Amino acid sequence: MNTDDRGVAVIGLGSMGSALAAALLDSGHPTTVWNRSAEKAAPLAARGARAAASLEEALAAAPVVLACVLDYDVLRALLTPVAGSLAGKVLVNLTSGSPEQAREMASWAGSHGADYLDGAIMTTPPGVGTAEVMFLYSGPDAVFEAHRPLLSALGDPLHLGGDPGLASLYDAALLGLMWATMTGWLHGTALVGAEKTEATAFTPVAIRWLSTVAVFLTTYAPQVDAGRYPGDDATVDVQIAAIGHLIHAASARGVDNALPELLKGMMERARAAGHGSDSYASLIEVLRK
Amino acid sequence: MNTDDRGVAVIGLGSMGSALAAALLDSGHPTTVWNRSAEKAAPLAARGARAAASLEEALAAAPVVLACVLDYDVLRALLTPVAGSLAGKVLVNLTSGSPEQAREMASWAGSHGADYLDGAIMTTPPGVGTAEVMFLYSGPDAVFEAHRPLLSALGDPLHLGGDPGLASLYDAALLGLMWATMTGWLHGTALVGAEKTEATAFTPVAIRWLSTVAVFLTTYAPQVDAGRYPGDDATVDVQIAAIGHLIHAASARGVDNALPELLKGMMERARAAGHGSDSYASLIEVLRK
Repeated sequence: MNTDDRGVAVIGLGSMGSALAAALLDSGHPTTVWNRSAEKAAPLAARGARAAASLEEALAAAPVVLACVLDYDVLRALLTPVAGSLAGKVLVNLTSGSPEQAREMASWAGSHGADYLDGAIMTTPPGVGTAEVMFLYSGPDAVFEAHRPLLSALGDPLHLGGDPGLASLYDAALLGLMWATMTGWLHGTALVGAEKTEATAFTPVAIRWLSTVAVFLTTYAPQVDAGRYPGDDATVDVQIAAIGHLIHAASARGVDNALPELLKGMMERARAAGHGSDSYASLIEVLRK
Repeated sequence: MNTDDRGVAVIGLGSMGSALAAALLDSGHPTTVWNRSAEKAAPLAARGARAAASLEEALAAAPVVLACVLDYDVLRALLTPVAGSLAGKVLVNLTSGSPEQAREMASWAGSHGADYLDGAIMTTPPGVGTAEVMFLYSGPDAVFEAHRPLLSALGDPLHLGGDPGLASLYDAALLGLMWATMTGWLHGTALVGAEKTEATAFTPVAIRWLSTVAVFLTTYAPQVDAGRYPGDDATVDVQIAAIGHLIHAASARGVDNALPELLKGMMERARAAGHGSDSYASLIEVLRK
């Protein structure tokens, strides 16, 4: 296996698929594009892509097929009629879905003689093609390594392991972290905003603080793996007292406290389970039902 | 006003106060220490601190008084009998409390002829004295600037503005962001952990992802200030669909979903308020009651 310069076919030209194709073109890879509604191909053809007249033609054009469509059901419905053309190809599936769907698709692709990588794109379309953006992949290591140069045109490719479900699993976990972080930031922004501090003033401080929080996570990760949570920096008891201050300050300023109240409740459950003198990492015990 | 080398007195020698005094000693500032129970001073005296026999003696020893005690009530109780010694001093109060308490203390200190800075320490005791750690201050700009060199011995001093309540307000907001982020990380860690991925494997990816999330916050902050939330990168509708996948994946693996369920509910409230096509930043509208 080796990446050759016969290029890549991009299946699905929504805003993300179009961004992927554009990044491939920008880095000089011969790129064939196909979309169910053909007009989406025109802007890419104007940038040098070959617009395939059919999905069969797209599959025939390149050894690597990069798919980014609405969901796994759509992809399966598209590929099933042309499954005979998949033998010897590498299917790189960047469609969003569940770990189970990724594993099933890997198995289906394998049954038709195709190698399979599942992927997750950790950015929005405007971020595609920048070197710092993470693209997560799972599937056979040799397949990933053979196509690393091609995948590097899209962003920084990270290989998570052989289980094709891992990219989707990490994707869900990381999005959950994102929503929690963004909502915590919005709550803080609403709190300081109640005292006329602008979001643009608070946010650089918040972002800098996140790098300190990252240090805490690095401290806590081995505690989680060890199942022991020494509270020498800050205990759950201390955090429960402190979050009371936040709830009081936010309540006094008309900010909705559902998020900190929920977090306080989780801390209290950890304390009730005997983790009052442990670190915040001990809350994982109450998250695992 | 100018920082002079007559040094600083540290009032309160719990683990944080002791760390503050140690950092001041390490950077060569003449440091006087005092604690209600005197034995806490011994380790610092061994490192070169002058252990004051009384609070009066501590206040007399230095033009700058740095206080870090249990709470504002304790500080007020300590200082009231010696209030006559405060005239001409600078009281830097790093005790945790509310914006209202900070403003009240500033006013009280002023009534006794002292300048006042309120502060918040954005680290745990082991982090004190490192240059990257944030110390937040609020109070008169001239007082802050005059003592910046001294305060720099503790960490990187950030001045938030003249209102003495701002340091406490930011502190609460940033801690809220911390708890939300740490809990989102723990949820993700529990999710990938259900598939035998170690926390120490997931966490570096999560930390790297946080720097992408920081880019989103930087994009969203001016939207919050403008009160307009164009959803050109990702809409609330898209996030609602995506968080459904997370909830499904976590539920299938026995991970408690109270946090993502709450976040989904907030997204749905934003959608119901007409923000379905807006960015995630529009959730601030449902946070402001």
